Amino acid sequence: MKLSEIAVRIGCRMESAEDVEILRIAGIEEAGPGDLSFISNRKYIRRLKNTRAAAVILAENIPPVAIPSLRTEDPYIAFAHALEIFHIPLRQEPGIHPTAFVDVDVEIGANASIGAHAAIGKGCRLGSGVTLFPNVVLYPGVRIGNDVLIHSCVTVREHCRLGNRVILQNGVVIGSDGLGFAPTEDGGFYKIVQTGTVTIEDDVEIGANTTIDRAAVGETVIRRGAKLDNLVQIGHGCRVGEDCVLAAQAGLAGSTRLGRGVWVGGQAGFAGHLNVGDGAVVTAQSGTSHDVPAKAVVSGSPAFDNRSWLRSVTVFPKLADLFKRIRVLEKDVDFLKKNQTGRTRKES
Amino acid sequence: MKLSEIAVRIGCRMESAEDVEILRIAGIEEAGPGDLSFISNRKYIRRLKNTRAAAVILAENIPPVAIPSLRTEDPYIAFAHALEIFHIPLRQEPGIHPTAFVDVDVEIGANASIGAHAAIGKGCRLGSGVTLFPNVVLYPGVRIGNDVLIHSCVTVREHCRLGNRVILQNGVVIGSDGLGFAPTEDGGFYKIVQTGTVTIEDDVEIGANTTIDRAAVGETVIRRGAKLDNLVQIGHGCRVGEDCVLAAQAGLAGSTRLGRGVWVGGQAGFAGHLNVGDGAVVTAQSGTSHDVPAKAVVSGSPAFDNRSWLRSVTVFPKLADLFKRIRVLEKDVDFLKKNQTGRTRKES
Amino acid sequence: MKLSEIAVRIGCRMESAEDVEILRIAGIEEAGPGDLSFISNRKYIRRLKNTRAAAVILAENIPPVAIPSLRTEDPYIAFAHALEIFHIPLRQEPGIHPTAFVDVDVEIGANASIGAHAAIGKGCRLGSGVTLFPNVVLYPGVRIGNDVLIHSCVTVREHCRLGNRVILQNGVVIGSDGLGFAPTEDGGFYKIVQTGTVTIEDDVEIGANTTIDRAAVGETVIRRGAKLDNLVQIGHGCRVGEDCVLAAQAGLAGSTRLGRGVWVGGQAGFAGHLNVGDGAVVTAQSGTSHDVPAKAVVSGSPAFDNRSWLRSVTVFPKLADLFKRIRVLEKDVDFLKKNQTGRTRKES
Repeated sequence: MKLSEIAVRIGCRMESAEDVEILRIAGIEEAGPGDLSFISNRKYIRRLKNTRAAAVILAENIPPVAIPSLRTEDPYIAFAHALEIFHIPLRQEPGIHPTAFVDVDVEIGANASIGAHAAIGKGCRLGSGVTLFPNVVLYPGVRIGNDVLIHSCVTVREHCRLGNRVILQNGVVIGSDGLGFAPTEDGGFYKIVQTGTVTIEDDVEIGANTTIDRAAVGETVIRRGAKLDNLVQIGHGCRVGEDCVLAAQAGLAGSTRLGRGVWVGGQAGFAGHLNVGDGAVVTAQSGTSHDVPAKAVVSGSPAFDNRSWLRSVTVFPKLADLFKRIRVLEKDVDFLKKNQTGRTRKES
Repeated sequence: MKLSEIAVRIGCRMESAEDVEILRIAGIEEAGPGDLSFISNRKYIRRLKNTRAAAVILAENIPPVAIPSLRTEDPYIAFAHALEIFHIPLRQEPGIHPTAFVDVDVEIGANASIGAHAAIGKGCRLGSGVTLFPNVVLYPGVRIGNDVLIHSCVTVREHCRLGNRVILQNGVVIGSDGLGFAPTEDGGFYKIVQTGTVTIEDDVEIGANTTIDRAAVGETVIRRGAKLDNLVQIGHGCRVGEDCVLAAQAGLAGSTRLGRGVWVGGQAGFAGHLNVGDGAVVTAQSGTSHDVPAKAVVSGSPAFDNRSWLRSVTVFPKLADLFKRIRVLEKDVDFLKKNQTGRTRKES
Repeated sequence: MKLSEIAVRIGCRMESAEDVEILRIAGIEEAGPGDLSFISNRKYIRRLKNTRAAAVILAENIPPVAIPSLRTEDPYIAFAHALEIFHIPLRQEPGIHPTAFVDVDVEIGANASIGAHAAIGKGCRLGSGVTLFPNVVLYPGVRIGNDVLIHSCVTVREHCRLGNRVILQNGVVIGSDGLGFAPTEDGGFYKIVQTGTVTIEDDVEIGANTTIDRAAVGETVIRRGAKLDNLVQIGHGCRVGEDCVLAAQAGLAGSTRLGRGVWVGGQAGFAGHLNVGDGAVVTAQSGTSHDVPAKAVVSGSPAFDNRSWLRSVTVFPKLADLFKRIRVLEKDVDFLKKNQTGRTRKES
């Protein structure tokens, strides 16, 4: 496809007169002849020097370059659209695969595709355009909106609900029982029956092998547009706000609530019953057992203000030296005290 | 159901004369008209002021409240029983689903329920009242006790054993090969065949997508009553003691042994070949490569005594200031030394 | 089997004249009569005193012991071979199970074994000697080499490729979509279609429930011989070098590259777009957002040189005391300054 045609389709301005043929989309470092690539971050501009890409999508504020370029305010979105031009999306044949099991009292909307060995429990309701890949299990009473994509080996447990355009990557578990046990007098535990459910709102995407526990009472809620990465743990009764982003292996203990647009780094953790304000950021591997105010950026385990944390971790590698310097200071001060007192005594 | 009847059924004392109708059980913050809730922790007493609950279960030592209340020594257990009154438990139809595959020489006890697309390998023995939800896989030679509940997409590998009343949440893997490789001279690895098994004793519950590796030789053991949360990793040859509790995303490297009643916080980690004494507590995100004595409470990575850790992390945010203060001290002491020496020299 | 025969088969030297009958292989602490065990690490020599093992495999440099022993330069490899003598490996019957679903245009090599309820998508190519255990899902266009072992409930997504002798433990996900979203002006996100694939080279083994995301463009690569433990996360576009070892619950954010022979401890984490040099070691629970040079050993979160880190964490528990000592020093120095100045003033 000609670069000029791509420019029209992805809403970019052609900067160069030269109209090259584009065969593929590629990252700036892997790109070769015939490839269109992109740079959105100014810090990667130097990579343009050595690239073998045929053309590049650039932000408006990046200086002119030697190869043909397309200009836009948002190169990342333009790149996403360019990828879509060349990508053949994965589709499963419509209809219900003969090896799938669909229990009684199930309703499935138009244009659905139910894969091999899927199992749909009693009383489930699926909207139109829903795709279940092979070996998906829906327990009884599950409700799913339209245009939902559920990859293989996912389970959605009894009575949980998914909105529209939800995407569940492979191996996700929605609605498992949380860790709810009351200690008994003999040192053991009595299981608290987990009577609640999980609600996943519209446009949520959840990464592979992530687990979201059902509430003990009421519901665990993942709000509209939230994006959860792989191997994330959401405890029972949590609320994850709209447009939150949780990176891989992050974990929330029970009943914690994230506001809108909270960013959680990889392997970060939250104790239970916390409130995290809108737009807060908790960086990777951090952990908190306290509420986090809106728009705060916190780091460390336990977490505190990110700028203070940066200062603390900068000096942490010198901590042993610090101890030595303190011992030296103590000796010096001891000497000074003795000396001063000594002389004072002699003089008086 | 009348509050008075619930009181009888869950073994509580009616404190108020007013006998309200209860429709539902709910958390104290979500509760509305017709709802019964509970408070076990004194720090949540203030929540009683604004609750819209119709009635509440309270510990005996909590002061009287304005709404109808039930009294008990253990409100959490009473709440658990109240939940059971209103909860319709999930049941799968008894019998073997026609799409399930049961290999030769398998014995299945009375009242079992084998779900769609389950696969039971050669020589497996299942007790009475066992439920396998859809897509469960039992490899050959697995032995399972009575009244065991195995949720969808769980695998139990060859020759592993489960006791009675074990519950495995969705996606659990029991008996996978551990990371056992002997380094070879060319910088590669030779796989150590993992010949052992896993034994899960009675009343253990294991959370979604948790993995428990089989032993290289002998067995990995999860002892009676232990509760493991989601996404936990148990390495080959580990022993997890009776009534241990491991929160989500905790991990044990190979051959580590937890005593009885050990509590492990979320995302905490243990190196291999450690011994952790009875009743020890390792708090969230902590990590240890040393043994932990019985009843010790340890924190941090690497972990040490929790009280010392609390003191250290309290001052850690001021670490950069500390460095500055030391530089100031050093200058002052230098000045004092020069001055003292200087004057001494002049005076002599 | 006689010890002498085992010695021949595993390439060891018989040290003792006594030729005992060996019934089983066992760890040194669990070993009983009839058991052959091994010691490779000198620090476990004291365990030989109390062992009930019938015989033991020892490194050449370990002093003579009271029980019959076999000698070798590499007791761990010898032990691995001894295990193989007594171990009956798990085998699934060859052929395609009648409940498996194989789509059109699939090629499967000789001696393959496809388990119950497996699903093989359109256009897949499987080499000879491939085993898929029950409920494995291969999406369309997957390519698999020879003698590959894929355990139950694994998914390999569309167009991903596996080399020869690859082993995937249960629940692994290869080729899920990574966390690729471009922020939009309204605070939401636009999904970046993940057009790339995953390539797993020869002799790689991947642990249970580990997830490896497909690249946004190009491929995510796990190079020859790498060993990944359970619940590991590999982000989109990463490269894991030959013979790398990643312990359980480690995580790599997108586009990070590990060189050859990198060791990553359990629960360690890497930010995206990093380069980690050959032979580097990142210890357990460490985290880095910077490149790591070849052969460096780093620890901590954020990670720095392991030896410095050991010094810092050794004094960290005394941090609060340090603060007190500094306050004492400040008072002393204040007093000294006042005193010196005071006397100076009086004297002048």
